[in-house]
Amino acid sequence: MPDASTPSAYTSLEARFRRIALLGETEAVLHWDYAAVMPDGGADTRAEQLAELKAISHGLLVTQETADLIGAAEAHTDELDAWQKANLHEIARQYRRSSALDEAFVTQLSKASSTSEKAWRKARADADFSIVADPLNELVELVREQATRIGEALDLAPYDALLDAYEPGGRAADIDPVLNDLADFLPGFLDEALERQASAGPITMPDGPFPQAIQRELGIRFMEVLGFDFTRGRLDVSHHPFCGGVPDDVRITTRYDEADFTTALMGVLHETGHALYEQGLPSDRRLQPVGTALSMSIHESQSLLMEMQVCRSPEFLNFALPIIRNTLGGEGSAWDVDNMLRLYHKVERSFIRVDADEVTYPLHVIVRYRLEQSIIDGTLNVRDLPDAWNSAFEELIGVAVPNDGIGCLQDIHWYDGALGYFPTYTLGAMTAAQVYQAAQDAIPSIPDNIASGNFSALVGWLRENVHSKGRLLSSAQLLTEATGRPLEAAPFKKHLKARYLPD
Amino acid sequence: MPDASTPSAYTSLEARFRRIALLGETEAVLHWDYAAVMPDGGADTRAEQLAELKAISHGLLVTQETADLIGAAEAHTDELDAWQKANLHEIARQYRRSSALDEAFVTQLSKASSTSEKAWRKARADADFSIVADPLNELVELVREQATRIGEALDLAPYDALLDAYEPGGRAADIDPVLNDLADFLPGFLDEALERQASAGPITMPDGPFPQAIQRELGIRFMEVLGFDFTRGRLDVSHHPFCGGVPDDVRITTRYDEADFTTALMGVLHETGHALYEQGLPSDRRLQPVGTALSMSIHESQSLLMEMQVCRSPEFLNFALPIIRNTLGGEGSAWDVDNMLRLYHKVERSFIRVDADEVTYPLHVIVRYRLEQSIIDGTLNVRDLPDAWNSAFEELIGVAVPNDGIGCLQDIHWYDGALGYFPTYTLGAMTAAQVYQAAQDAIPSIPDNIASGNFSALVGWLRENVHSKGRLLSSAQLLTEATGRPLEAAPFKKHLKARYLPD
Repeated sequence: MPDASTPSAYTSLEARFRRIALLGETEAVLHWDYAAVMPDGGADTRAEQLAELKAISHGLLVTQETADLIGAAEAHTDELDAWQKANLHEIARQYRRSSALDEAFVTQLSKASSTSEKAWRKARADADFSIVADPLNELVELVREQATRIGEALDLAPYDALLDAYEPGGRAADIDPVLNDLADFLPGFLDEALERQASAGPITMPDGPFPQAIQRELGIRFMEVLGFDFTRGRLDVSHHPFCGGVPDDVRITTRYDEADFTTALMGVLHETGHALYEQGLPSDRRLQPVGTALSMSIHESQSLLMEMQVCRSPEFLNFALPIIRNTLGGEGSAWDVDNMLRLYHKVERSFIRVDADEVTYPLHVIVRYRLEQSIIDGTLNVRDLPDAWNSAFEELIGVAVPNDGIGCLQDIHWYDGALGYFPTYTLGAMTAAQVYQAAQDAIPSIPDNIASGNFSALVGWLRENVHSKGRLLSSAQLLTEATGRPLEAAPFKKHLKARYLPD
Repeated sequence: MPDASTPSAYTSLEARFRRIALLGETEAVLHWDYAAVMPDGGADTRAEQLAELKAISHGLLVTQETADLIGAAEAHTDELDAWQKANLHEIARQYRRSSALDEAFVTQLSKASSTSEKAWRKARADADFSIVADPLNELVELVREQATRIGEALDLAPYDALLDAYEPGGRAADIDPVLNDLADFLPGFLDEALERQASAGPITMPDGPFPQAIQRELGIRFMEVLGFDFTRGRLDVSHHPFCGGVPDDVRITTRYDEADFTTALMGVLHETGHALYEQGLPSDRRLQPVGTALSMSIHESQSLLMEMQVCRSPEFLNFALPIIRNTLGGEGSAWDVDNMLRLYHKVERSFIRVDADEVTYPLHVIVRYRLEQSIIDGTLNVRDLPDAWNSAFEELIGVAVPNDGIGCLQDIHWYDGALGYFPTYTLGAMTAAQVYQAAQDAIPSIPDNIASGNFSALVGWLRENVHSKGRLLSSAQLLTEATGRPLEAAPFKKHLKARYLPD
């Protein structure tokens, strides 16, 4: 028996990770500030502040002391409850990921990433891949090395080692069949959906302008409807919308277009889905790894569940449209529910992922997922990326890419060294469909509640089955407990059929 | 000769204090966020974030390693230039102040301070000193102990040890004669000024309402006139106006009253004076102690120079009033220059320091300064504070205090453990007069420039003679170099006579 007066190794780890978490929260506030309110002149000093916080965090995480404490705690897991065990597992995972790379390598990677990103900005502006080919190639070689080293430390294949950073426990072997299922289904489905859409005649955009202040008021009104707690969060403006801050003070942002209110409104509802997850994390596990959001796919599932599954549904739009129309003073037939539903369900073969609808979006992701796997296993040479992109894109989405600027150069991810992130978007979309179906199976009145603007049953179910779990379970376990099955494409396909090809 | 490849002790200290400074900058951003934008629910986690940053900073500052590096650097000051020597002096001072108190004592002090502050909130609301008497007495005993310990470490008398925290190099022996000079002069002067004011008939307030958004626009316009760099700063709203942020990103705040624009406008100009100082600190000494603002009195001198000396002058108001009137759409005789000048020069015997005019303000300060000296040297018992306050107040300001809520309970300072701060307000007011006089002596066209809204010569002179010096010199040295004399009351008295009792 350990002496009760000396803290156990596990207790010491909790204290250390609490400090790391508080530094992380501080970074989150500085990031929000940077994106939402900071004047340009503060950029250099902000970068230095963030670098210093990261260096201090890294110093606390990657030391022999942490390693020794983990070893000692792992030798006494019988003294820990399920939450503590899951916390220790996550602590060890974070330590092993970070300690797999020495300082010199991290610096090299960071420099290569910043060189490549800089070249990418010019390459994208000029639609000229050759500008970034060499820096990207150098970066990719280092990312492969990173994948190999972390893979060795965690006993994972190189691609899985990268994926695991965003999707703990995510493995290509599990994801491939689900995404292949979608890749088989979607191209034909897209043809049919486009045909059905064309046969129904043109869609009309409501006429603006829609002043930013009124759009904001509208966004806040619906955030409240969804259950966002404004005593623990804010809505602001930034160039790239995001959900940031900390669980007790969640900061979401959006960007307003005064000619078109539809994008910002759905953007706000999307970020509110993320925010509800953060606000619903287990407060008694606050500042410990086990108390944080589970993975990128689960996070994205919460935003897409709100935006795509719920807020673009006829139930919600029937409830919301009179309010929207009234607030914005809309007039004319463009405001008819039928037209607005068709506007919010519009499908098209687009080149840009971030603007894509929910039918084509997964195809954009699958193109990238397959290419980045080939890049990591070395079967695709960086120099051949544009050709590979263009042929994969035409095969899956059915249009020829006119230039690399709106082709393989459109996203920052790879050029910044972030390989392994893309699949989480579509895992999130599928999870959203599966989870929303389960919620409705459990509480059949949910669609009726939504139709009267009552989100409490839905959010209550999500809190209980998803948000409050933190990282107690793996994504696969969480999904099985919440929905009865591991992740599969079927609920998502069912959702798409019901919305885009109703009988 | 030290090996050129190993960093000198001084260089190592610079690296350590750079890290401490970046943590301090981070705290400054979190403080601004707390006051200006944070929702209430974030308060607990914000307090934890700040406490953790402070603990990390303290750990970097108070260690044997820091002590050893200071010792080694002080043994080789011949290798340092004047800026480095001043930096080392400030580093040693900070170390010695902090290391004079052990952790247990700091915790005890912090607990007593928070208990006393809590009791004070209730005592002030109820205007009942007895509620806070015991907690304040306990806190004061610890503050005396703190003063003694720091005094021993720095070879200072106890009160000076407290004062030195806000006013490095400030000593009661130097301040007493200057404040006594004012205490002799002001009561009679106040009588005369009030008489002169009464004989000129009533002053009229312009009629509102003045919408917050338009007041804000006006504030921004004049901040630009004064030279505030909006690429390196912001204007926001908070309950208590302040100047925060970091030199490359200075955040000032104000509070708007839609019935009265005059307070917020002068408040913004006051904070802009603080901000110009921060924006003008020596950028090549950034993140080192020597590169920071010199003292509270010098900081306050910069805000009072702008607000009291310049922006309440006839020259500025003649320039500004047409713009103010035009922006706010003001009509009627209240807007005449003569009435507005009288409004901005209104004198009264008030009970509340923060609302006091520039004639009575120093008397409010002198009451506090004398009392806190007696509290620290033990000649005034905390229990006797209300009586002592009331008789000192009536003697200097000439009115009987009706209750302790607007008497000795009005300010948070003492109840929070901050003794030694009060005199810096009036040192700042006197410094402002002396510095502005010197600037006009050096550049006689300054009042004419102000009259046409041109602040560049004045701000240029302040940058060169005050802002860019950081902590290179002591306050006394700075003032002597900039104005030819150490601090004295004469220029302030001359200013008051010219404004309130012109021939």
